Amino acid sequence: MINQSLLVKIKEKLPGVCLANQAMGIPTGVSNRHVHLSAADIEALFGQGYTLTPFKDLKQPGQYAAKECVMVVGSKGSISKVRVLGPARPTTQLEVSKADCYTLGIKAPVRESGALSNSADALMVGPAGHVHLKSQVICAQRHIHMNGLDARMLNVVNGQKVRVKTEGQCGLVFDEVVVRVNEAYALEFHIDTDEANAAGLRSNDSVFITD
Amino acid sequence: MINQSLLVKIKEKLPGVCLANQAMGIPTGVSNRHVHLSAADIEALFGQGYTLTPFKDLKQPGQYAAKECVMVVGSKGSISKVRVLGPARPTTQLEVSKADCYTLGIKAPVRESGALSNSADALMVGPAGHVHLKSQVICAQRHIHMNGLDARMLNVVNGQKVRVKTEGQCGLVFDEVVVRVNEAYALEFHIDTDEANAAGLRSNDSVFITD
Repeated sequence: MINQSLLVKIKEKLPGVCLANQAMGIPTGVSNRHVHLSAADIEALFGQGYTLTPFKDLKQPGQYAAKECVMVVGSKGSISKVRVLGPARPTTQLEVSKADCYTLGIKAPVRESGALSNSADALMVGPAGHVHLKSQVICAQRHIHMNGLDARMLNVVNGQKVRVKTEGQCGLVFDEVVVRVNEAYALEFHIDTDEANAAGLRSNDSVFITD
Repeated sequence: MINQSLLVKIKEKLPGVCLANQAMGIPTGVSNRHVHLSAADIEALFGQGYTLTPFKDLKQPGQYAAKECVMVVGSKGSISKVRVLGPARPTTQLEVSKADCYTLGIKAPVRESGALSNSADALMVGPAGHVHLKSQVICAQRHIHMNGLDARMLNVVNGQKVRVKTEGQCGLVFDEVVVRVNEAYALEFHIDTDEANAAGLRSNDSVFITD
């Protein structure tokens, strides 16, 4: 795989060279608010011994939207029918949009998945109980999932930040898009509903890496 | 004022020249959902002979947020406390975000203010009655208000579409930003709440025209 320092060197030597493959479309995946639950929190919310019921497969292999939903409560308001995504994870993580933060009255930071230190709190309510989320609520930073072959074709590396161009009447260029490379990933540009609305994007719309 | 064809000629002759003044910050104005009402609709919603009560001056001279609010109803849901902006206008126009469209169950097109042909419908309910909006609901296209002096300093002309760059963790570049020049306007980059959330922008944050 081409590493970051090599890319930088090429760019320094040949500033006119287009490093990213700008002809390769990347399908968009719009993430509505959702929660990943630990096995312990699944039991606390839905009952002892409870396991999630897959409802719809997601594009990322092995991931699914579960039948189960929860209510999320903040100091200013609540949001019902927040979808649970499966399978269970080691740590519960709630992902919301900035619009949701206003509704709930919380200040969730923009973070990569898993970077929960000093993130926001909320109360989560299920049919069998509630769970107090402590530093477990984030706004997901825009990112692209891809495997190693995609990364080589797109001339990008894991952790690199790229710019992503959208087209149409609400076209824009997203800066600060994090590339996440893993052999288990399907190629997909993940944004939240605020970002999708701003750009006029829907799931499966093609976007392009740009300089 | 520099006209568009002259700008194009300059750009053709001197492609390296920066035509827009990229050092001049433009303050952001985030528009939440709101409605401009005709005098007749003010009476239909609030009672015979009723006039709006100014509540807070807006940055655009002569414009104000009124004390009055209305409820807006669509086929899928309703939104209460939608702010009325004054003064009264010849034609009632409701401006919503795309997120609001999902809540209401309507499909409002992205349009410049006043371009209402084939736009969306909604029901508007006030304390004294209701009004059926027919082809009077839009998502406002991102735009910059400015006067002639601002336009000369920014090297842009009325009706021109420019790109606007924002900074920070959610930085992006908005394409398709319409310049609107009028001596009555104060310099202000108008976006809706979806766009503000996507870019991490708040009212009065500075943005910049870019190539």
